[in-house]
Amino acid sequence: MSQIAYVETTGGVTAPRGFTAAGAVAAIKYERKDVALAYSDREASAAGVFTTNIVKAAPVLLTMEHIKDGIARAVVVNSGNANACVGPRGLDDARAMANEAAKLLGLPAEQVLVASTGVIGQPMPMDRVLSGVQRAVAELSSEGGHDAATAIMTTDTVAKEAAVTVELGGVKATIGGMAKGSGMIHPNMATMLCFITTDVAIDSRLLHQALNVAVENTFNMVTVDGDTSTNDMVLVLANGASGNRKISDEDLDYVTFATALEAVCLKLTMAVAADGEGATRLLEVRVQGAATQHDARLVARAVASSNLVKAAVFGKDANWGRIICAAGYSGASFNPDTVDIYVGDIQVAKNGGGLPFSEERATEMLSGNQAVFTIDLHNGDSCAIAWGCDLTYDYVSINGSYRT
Amino acid sequence: MSQIAYVETTGGVTAPRGFTAAGAVAAIKYERKDVALAYSDREASAAGVFTTNIVKAAPVLLTMEHIKDGIARAVVVNSGNANACVGPRGLDDARAMANEAAKLLGLPAEQVLVASTGVIGQPMPMDRVLSGVQRAVAELSSEGGHDAATAIMTTDTVAKEAAVTVELGGVKATIGGMAKGSGMIHPNMATMLCFITTDVAIDSRLLHQALNVAVENTFNMVTVDGDTSTNDMVLVLANGASGNRKISDEDLDYVTFATALEAVCLKLTMAVAADGEGATRLLEVRVQGAATQHDARLVARAVASSNLVKAAVFGKDANWGRIICAAGYSGASFNPDTVDIYVGDIQVAKNGGGLPFSEERATEMLSGNQAVFTIDLHNGDSCAIAWGCDLTYDYVSINGSYRT
Repeated sequence: MSQIAYVETTGGVTAPRGFTAAGAVAAIKYERKDVALAYSDREASAAGVFTTNIVKAAPVLLTMEHIKDGIARAVVVNSGNANACVGPRGLDDARAMANEAAKLLGLPAEQVLVASTGVIGQPMPMDRVLSGVQRAVAELSSEGGHDAATAIMTTDTVAKEAAVTVELGGVKATIGGMAKGSGMIHPNMATMLCFITTDVAIDSRLLHQALNVAVENTFNMVTVDGDTSTNDMVLVLANGASGNRKISDEDLDYVTFATALEAVCLKLTMAVAADGEGATRLLEVRVQGAATQHDARLVARAVASSNLVKAAVFGKDANWGRIICAAGYSGASFNPDTVDIYVGDIQVAKNGGGLPFSEERATEMLSGNQAVFTIDLHNGDSCAIAWGCDLTYDYVSINGSYRT
Repeated sequence: MSQIAYVETTGGVTAPRGFTAAGAVAAIKYERKDVALAYSDREASAAGVFTTNIVKAAPVLLTMEHIKDGIARAVVVNSGNANACVGPRGLDDARAMANEAAKLLGLPAEQVLVASTGVIGQPMPMDRVLSGVQRAVAELSSEGGHDAATAIMTTDTVAKEAAVTVELGGVKATIGGMAKGSGMIHPNMATMLCFITTDVAIDSRLLHQALNVAVENTFNMVTVDGDTSTNDMVLVLANGASGNRKISDEDLDYVTFATALEAVCLKLTMAVAADGEGATRLLEVRVQGAATQHDARLVARAVASSNLVKAAVFGKDANWGRIICAAGYSGASFNPDTVDIYVGDIQVAKNGGGLPFSEERATEMLSGNQAVFTIDLHNGDSCAIAWGCDLTYDYVSINGSYRT
């Protein structure tokens, strides 16, 4: 995959041609930008991946309905309120957001996708939300990507954007994205809100396939606290404005596009993990030598999810016993007596037992803003990488008083 | 079950007749009591439940072997070192512990069960361990239960003991137990070290059956941090010294015994949850109205395990959205629109949506040393209870620097 060229660029969701965006102040919870809008000047293929939580927020249900035909033109998002667990009015409110944006943009309501993030169980202040939607429509701009990325933040400390360009049959095409996510993040669903735009022309079935693969390798491999939200989704809109020959087969163009899409997802994934609530460093867990990819993913995610591992990373403690312990309860099958473990580039365990190593150097490996563990199971050829962060005092502080 | 009478008593593992115990200083990690021994003056039926982690510590493997015949007379335990992930010498060291105790007690080595708890991946200081075993044999006493319970502690802040008496066919019989467990505790295995003694005469097959049921309802429903240890086990020795007619059928005596055994396990379970690393309060999650017991357990454990719920309990925040969210990703099937939630005796959600409630009273409900959540799924007749604790600054502090 690494031979396929894509070039990083800037601009987030407004990097691709034909897209405008905005982030408007609605003051839903705080006085800040909290309604985001992304808009395509023409019809776009659309695909989405949604939370596996059976308690789904109203906007998730509405968007799943609106995206069924594989076509959309706008995404409207609010932060500050999840519009989840509020009874039947939840769906009415989500619909009202879509309708308001559709009316002002001159679109059928079904072409507007809706997402919400924030506190669960409190009714949306719809007067403020709708005036936020109005303001966002008025503020749409081809430079609005960053404002939109800012407006979807909750406990995030930084706006998360990514964009890359690729060549498809001599035509330059662009993929841009924004994500929000900091707490309540765990594998096995679209683990956050993420919105991706592209000016590539692609069949919506193939768009969905490429998105699924990308999510599986990126967003589904990130964990902050093991809690799977009611509101998560990853959406992609592909409007064809680049002028490429429409991708309708799994040809080289498809592979190029899928690789670049995954690169955007990966950059956003790592940004989410690094910005985990209270985190001081990104944790990357690499697993190799697994019998199956499924096993590799199980081990990588179990280690990245372990509170004990995460607390040790915070404490810069190369406590590899906790790593092999988490691998052992992950559900993957392997022989404990052939496991090697590395902290950064220092091997700390061989054949399931400890090696003498310099604690000082190991602490050094854990002192930067990124900690890397490598686990070699010596049980096959499959590998996987999971991302997480350390568990800190600030995580407890943030989540001990989120509502109030 | 509540009609069956058992009476709480004191004395821990030395409460039943025919058992002596000791806690000796071996200074394995710190200068403290860290080798425990429990001994039956006659042959006892024995049963055990062991960690499901595929990385099993050497003493777990040895004890699984020694208990196969359903007979044992002694349990020797050290804290301060887990004797896990140390290569082939681990099994040699576990065997040496059993052999030393067997030699001094005049038993076949197979009648000695071994357990260890502490840091993973460091070789045992066997000279100190073995002199600890020698000292423990010398100090055996019918009042030694508390010393033994003290010697198996690691990050525990209190020794955990329980004992009850029952009448079996006019004969008074006693069940006593001790447990250690504070971090690295999670459902679906014997989630800690727990040693139970009883002077009941019972067939080892039935003893195993009663233990399995008790563990399923108690130790397998407690979670501190979602990490499943390499060393956990629950052992029970039944020596028949009470003189009851040997239980060899599932008759009333069996039911009486099984109920009392579960009561001992429950008391130890709650003691472990309340003493979760850094915990300020016990969390009890009651689920009712589930379609199946499996569903009820899934929901109860997911809620009790959620970092977000646990942090909210620490912050005395009645954030019920996190409760329904955790229920939703638990894997249980239910209709989100029929869920009722109570914090203490205050209903905070009905039919999946929030109710107005006094935040002040809810905070009060979360201010004691025990927080109770009740979740009614209105989806059937099954129920379950899980226990946990809050997630605090001290958990992070303890686990950021455990090894050093």
